[in-house]
Amino acid sequence: MVRPCVAQTPAYVPGEQPQGSTFIKLNTNENPYPPPAEVLAALQGQLEQVRLYPDPNSTLLRKTAADLYGVELNQVLAGNGSDDILNVAIRTFVDPGDRVAFPDLTYSLYETLTNIHGAKIIQVATNETFELDNPIICPEAKLIFLASPNPPLGQQIRRDIVEKTCQEATGVVVIDEAYVDFSQSHYLDFVQRYDHILISRTMSKGYSLAGARVGFGIGQETLIQEMNKVRDSYNLDRFAQAIATSALQSQDYFQGIWEKVRQTRSRLIQGLRDQEFQVFDSEANFVLASPQWMSAKELYETLREQKILVRYFKHPRIANFVRITVGTDDEIDQLLAAIARIRNPEITV
Amino acid sequence: MVRPCVAQTPAYVPGEQPQGSTFIKLNTNENPYPPPAEVLAALQGQLEQVRLYPDPNSTLLRKTAADLYGVELNQVLAGNGSDDILNVAIRTFVDPGDRVAFPDLTYSLYETLTNIHGAKIIQVATNETFELDNPIICPEAKLIFLASPNPPLGQQIRRDIVEKTCQEATGVVVIDEAYVDFSQSHYLDFVQRYDHILISRTMSKGYSLAGARVGFGIGQETLIQEMNKVRDSYNLDRFAQAIATSALQSQDYFQGIWEKVRQTRSRLIQGLRDQEFQVFDSEANFVLASPQWMSAKELYETLREQKILVRYFKHPRIANFVRITVGTDDEIDQLLAAIARIRNPEITV
Repeated sequence: MVRPCVAQTPAYVPGEQPQGSTFIKLNTNENPYPPPAEVLAALQGQLEQVRLYPDPNSTLLRKTAADLYGVELNQVLAGNGSDDILNVAIRTFVDPGDRVAFPDLTYSLYETLTNIHGAKIIQVATNETFELDNPIICPEAKLIFLASPNPPLGQQIRRDIVEKTCQEATGVVVIDEAYVDFSQSHYLDFVQRYDHILISRTMSKGYSLAGARVGFGIGQETLIQEMNKVRDSYNLDRFAQAIATSALQSQDYFQGIWEKVRQTRSRLIQGLRDQEFQVFDSEANFVLASPQWMSAKELYETLREQKILVRYFKHPRIANFVRITVGTDDEIDQLLAAIARIRNPEITV
Repeated sequence: MVRPCVAQTPAYVPGEQPQGSTFIKLNTNENPYPPPAEVLAALQGQLEQVRLYPDPNSTLLRKTAADLYGVELNQVLAGNGSDDILNVAIRTFVDPGDRVAFPDLTYSLYETLTNIHGAKIIQVATNETFELDNPIICPEAKLIFLASPNPPLGQQIRRDIVEKTCQEATGVVVIDEAYVDFSQSHYLDFVQRYDHILISRTMSKGYSLAGARVGFGIGQETLIQEMNKVRDSYNLDRFAQAIATSALQSQDYFQGIWEKVRQTRSRLIQGLRDQEFQVFDSEANFVLASPQWMSAKELYETLREQKILVRYFKHPRIANFVRITVGTDDEIDQLLAAIARIRNPEITV
């Protein structure tokens, strides 16, 4: 009874989300700072209307996003997190059996979504430091996923590579900017220069709303109107729409937070290098780091015993790396101190 | 760039959802009564955690639903509304090109979802009073949708017809019980007796949470675990999970409301019949009614001018019917008074 493409696909495994426990949680790239009080207050007005359907078009939220991004209302699709946007993109532009291309080390959901849909994967090689150093030239691909900054490395894909990939693509290119708020550059200009580019954004990271599930697809209206048919007609509930609208309107607050995360990121990178880690530079709110004195898996497990969660991937190319989310300064101090104790149990910090 | 099956499908048009206006809203089958205060209070605990991802498995919500429905945790899938459940069912069990069967007059989303997926529709005839009076026997269908109570009529499909449809089906049968809370019977027992039956439930109607987007799929674990791969991994936000869990725990309150809706439904049906409407009996929170003295379209438009919204469908078989949601007693009094004035403008009510 089950489609073979579904039966053959292993379930996607999201990062661990312990509920109601006391971990220092540096494993799924959440923002360490909460939204400001006025954003939380935006929920109150929705409570007495919860018996009524939400606006199926998320109009106010999309208008707020469109103004912020400098595009028209009908160039913005709202999604139940950017995962919804990625899912809808595949279902709008890819027939089962078609090809979908993406780098061989990137957001692992692309692979799951492609397999579940019954489409075929073309993996494009990254170099020994996990960078894409050539454009993706793949005329048979109906969809190309380019995450920039690209997890788990956290670096922007070079502009000339993105440009050439877009120029050569015959299908749609999704530039997944989930982590862009922590970077100094973005590719929003591509949606005005090309009619086959979709920018994907999320409010889970930059806007501290992982718990509210809000993302956007931004592109030419011709793309967006077709994706709009495929999304669920009430894909964002009242609470998500209200809190996300208010958060987008709190630019000063969040820009301050992004700068703070960047500063802490520098401290984290230096602190890890000081303790003999190989650490890549990052433009995201996480760093990819490899301890030179212990296996990454053992480090992950040891930190977990000490109630510090970082991310360890069962992927052969990064088997000796952990991905660490940039937390608060205090959380990073505790992480670095724990690492120091692990390296030298006789130290008392 | 767009899949032909998507490009050729017209966009699904949900019922009108005027935001922030003063209509008496009897057009999209919302519950006229809000959830109790303690349910709304369940949101507060989520605010300070909104920066963190929700439980991707909606465990507490699903456990609460499983206990209520008398099934195991792993027999319940939580969806972003039951629309999400229907969507995931198609994508789990139907390959593009396969057949999906449903009655020729039912929830119109089935048609949209089937077309968007690139599958083929088999419509099964209902009789002149819009009832399914024979089982659906359709061995080529990979999925059968049976809504019971079935909109827009609002009546349960007879048990012997549901039973025979399930016995003969070679694919999965979805029994969509969106309106079941207002009825006196249900088909939950089918999920224990068959391994290819999925019950779909929503909290939008019975539990006054249309604005929160929560639904369930209930079936044997073998079905649910495959659907679980296809759903978005964070498909329910923190707010939806919390408020829905609390609502399921407030059975006494909601059972009182369902009884009240049934009483008002009887009054509405009698009041319409007294004013020369053909009205079908209903086991849902709406009635299908045809004025014998004016076209239904004109009645819909005239009521709309008077700030009363009912639903009019552009479907030839029900071109002279309106579907009216059971509101509060006061709302129904105002509706009946408005109808009396339309019939006889000299009446002063």
